[in-house]
Amino acid sequence: MQIIDGTIASPKGFYATGLHAGLKKEKKDLGVIYSAIPANAAAVYTTNQVKAAPIFVTKEAMADQKVQSVVVNSGIANACTGDLGLENAKEMQSLAASQLNVAKENVAVASTGVIGKQLPMEIIESGISKIDLQQQQPYAFHEAILTTDTSTKEIVVTEEINGQMVTMAGVAKGSGMIHPNMATMLAFITTDAQISKDLLQEMLADKTETTFNQITVDGDTSTNDMVLVLANGLAENPIIEKNSEAHEKFIAMFQLVSETLAKMIAKDGEGATKLIEVQVVGALSDTEARLVAKKVVGSSLVKTAMFGEDPNWGRIICAVGYAGSQTDPEKIDMWIGDQQLLKHSQPQEFDELVMKETLEKEKICITVDLNIGEQSGKAWGCDLTYKYIEVNALYHT
Amino acid sequence: MQIIDGTIASPKGFYATGLHAGLKKEKKDLGVIYSAIPANAAAVYTTNQVKAAPIFVTKEAMADQKVQSVVVNSGIANACTGDLGLENAKEMQSLAASQLNVAKENVAVASTGVIGKQLPMEIIESGISKIDLQQQQPYAFHEAILTTDTSTKEIVVTEEINGQMVTMAGVAKGSGMIHPNMATMLAFITTDAQISKDLLQEMLADKTETTFNQITVDGDTSTNDMVLVLANGLAENPIIEKNSEAHEKFIAMFQLVSETLAKMIAKDGEGATKLIEVQVVGALSDTEARLVAKKVVGSSLVKTAMFGEDPNWGRIICAVGYAGSQTDPEKIDMWIGDQQLLKHSQPQEFDELVMKETLEKEKICITVDLNIGEQSGKAWGCDLTYKYIEVNALYHT
Repeated sequence: MQIIDGTIASPKGFYATGLHAGLKKEKKDLGVIYSAIPANAAAVYTTNQVKAAPIFVTKEAMADQKVQSVVVNSGIANACTGDLGLENAKEMQSLAASQLNVAKENVAVASTGVIGKQLPMEIIESGISKIDLQQQQPYAFHEAILTTDTSTKEIVVTEEINGQMVTMAGVAKGSGMIHPNMATMLAFITTDAQISKDLLQEMLADKTETTFNQITVDGDTSTNDMVLVLANGLAENPIIEKNSEAHEKFIAMFQLVSETLAKMIAKDGEGATKLIEVQVVGALSDTEARLVAKKVVGSSLVKTAMFGEDPNWGRIICAVGYAGSQTDPEKIDMWIGDQQLLKHSQPQEFDELVMKETLEKEKICITVDLNIGEQSGKAWGCDLTYKYIEVNALYHT
Repeated sequence: MQIIDGTIASPKGFYATGLHAGLKKEKKDLGVIYSAIPANAAAVYTTNQVKAAPIFVTKEAMADQKVQSVVVNSGIANACTGDLGLENAKEMQSLAASQLNVAKENVAVASTGVIGKQLPMEIIESGISKIDLQQQQPYAFHEAILTTDTSTKEIVVTEEINGQMVTMAGVAKGSGMIHPNMATMLAFITTDAQISKDLLQEMLADKTETTFNQITVDGDTSTNDMVLVLANGLAENPIIEKNSEAHEKFIAMFQLVSETLAKMIAKDGEGATKLIEVQVVGALSDTEARLVAKKVVGSSLVKTAMFGEDPNWGRIICAVGYAGSQTDPEKIDMWIGDQQLLKHSQPQEFDELVMKETLEKEKICITVDLNIGEQSGKAWGCDLTYKYIEVNALYHT
């Protein structure tokens, strides 16, 4: 497998573009992905009971697991917008379908931004009318889906599968209201691999648990979360059979793409200066390991300690204790970087200079060994900073 | 019932004092409560699996539900301190027992402060040796249990029960690592009422659910949480019978004391400028109503919005949606103060000037009507501010 430079349109037969329609002051706010032929598709959505209108429209479009185009806007979430919001999301789907000449049942819709505002449909309509399949700017799509993100988030990988080069590309946006459960804010993954709808959905559901669902910025699960995978088969590899070597390779590509996007979202959390990775080993199950890892990385006290570059293991073991998994409180080992802080829950001497250097880095790894089993799991988050307060207290509805 | 000025030693036969032993630089850090006779006692403790040494010692002392004295230190939590920590907590119990001439089995022990440091026993010993039952300073006890708290937290109420005046006093500390589950950081409640151990424990367990367990500052459940109630019977009221009018009156006193202390803890959360009260009505059960209320008041995005004095109902309804209770996302009504923001999940016009004044206050009330049942619940928290980051990032272990 190779990581290459590229965009969401790098896999064969994919097109993408983005533009400034006028929902935001200056930044790009409307984007589309298009596949030359309808692609097999898989999706996971927010588990928040309050779901945005586009979630319902996309779920309906996904009934046959075929998607040919995705239309996305940022700036307005189209959440808590009632019947009119639902009509508007459907209208956005229809407009994109006409403009791109695809069946509207094969158009997925996604939105992100402020909750409770109606989409100004004249702006959406005029924006969509400017999309020209002959003139694409794929990187502009990466920009068009952002809100408070400070950078675009993308990764492209290639791999030979059943004798053919297959490409997979992923793009995501995150930043605030990030504590996904079944999906994350918005992530789109395209591939030209031939693979069945069932294997695609199975893989997405499985990998979401260990990647997108294992990040947290602020503990708040959004109303608009969605991960959508499109596989159009244009690489012309012999179709991927379940449990074959090809399947394993494909899953490895997907794991790398998903985990990379998840980490990028965690690192670019609102106000963040550091990526925090927590690995829990020695747990009774991988589910419990992930639970403990996510509780530690989500603790405000751990997040502020990392911002302050303080090896405050008391706050870490406290979070392990309340995570709700099986734990023997006398048996916990802990490391920050490669410096051991606790052995069987007892403080260890460590090199303060090395620790200082470890904590000054942009990525901090915390490892917890529960010493009661063989299973492990990871979670990713960011530090909690003055800037987070600024971003969220100065933001006015 | 009457609220009066007083201290934890106001009920008949109680004595309390506090002093500077030397665990902290200058502030008071050691305190005791003493009852002239062994009191019937009830307690609830942290559900964190990582429990501090004094929790184990107090649980053992509580085996017969009789307590005559409580010894408390602040500055060091005596948590994650292994066998030596447990020995030290027992030694602290013995020292207090000797000094006050009570059976050590009747001495409860509590600690709060830094995790992972051993108690310097020579300081504890010298501090306890200065306690003189002839010279009490009850208010100094209120001060001696504080850590990052900015103010003491106490309330005293009196009521005539079965023809006798009964007094109940409560004192607490909170500030950080506040997201109690079965108890809160430290709260001590004394009363001279005659009441059985069983009724006392039943009432404490029941009321803890709706008071101390309904506050959150930072989502972190401490290793040292404890609420302890002592009833020494010296008011000489005829004993309180279950379900009698006297029982009702006594429960009302306890409810007021517990809820007042809980709100004081929430309001004095680290860096807080505002108390936030969330009331959820129209829920299917009171448990679900409390769950939703606690999720809303614990949301970092809601907390920063309140700091920014922004009526950001999108963040509130988002938290309602992910709280995990039964909800009809189309039926939610919402108010901040007495201004309605949502009716059946649709935005309502409100008076912006009145809203501005409401949000500028030190206490903000958010009401959510789920409109699917008859039950209700409340939770209390505080805003999330620059000062919270400062307190927790600059604090070094």
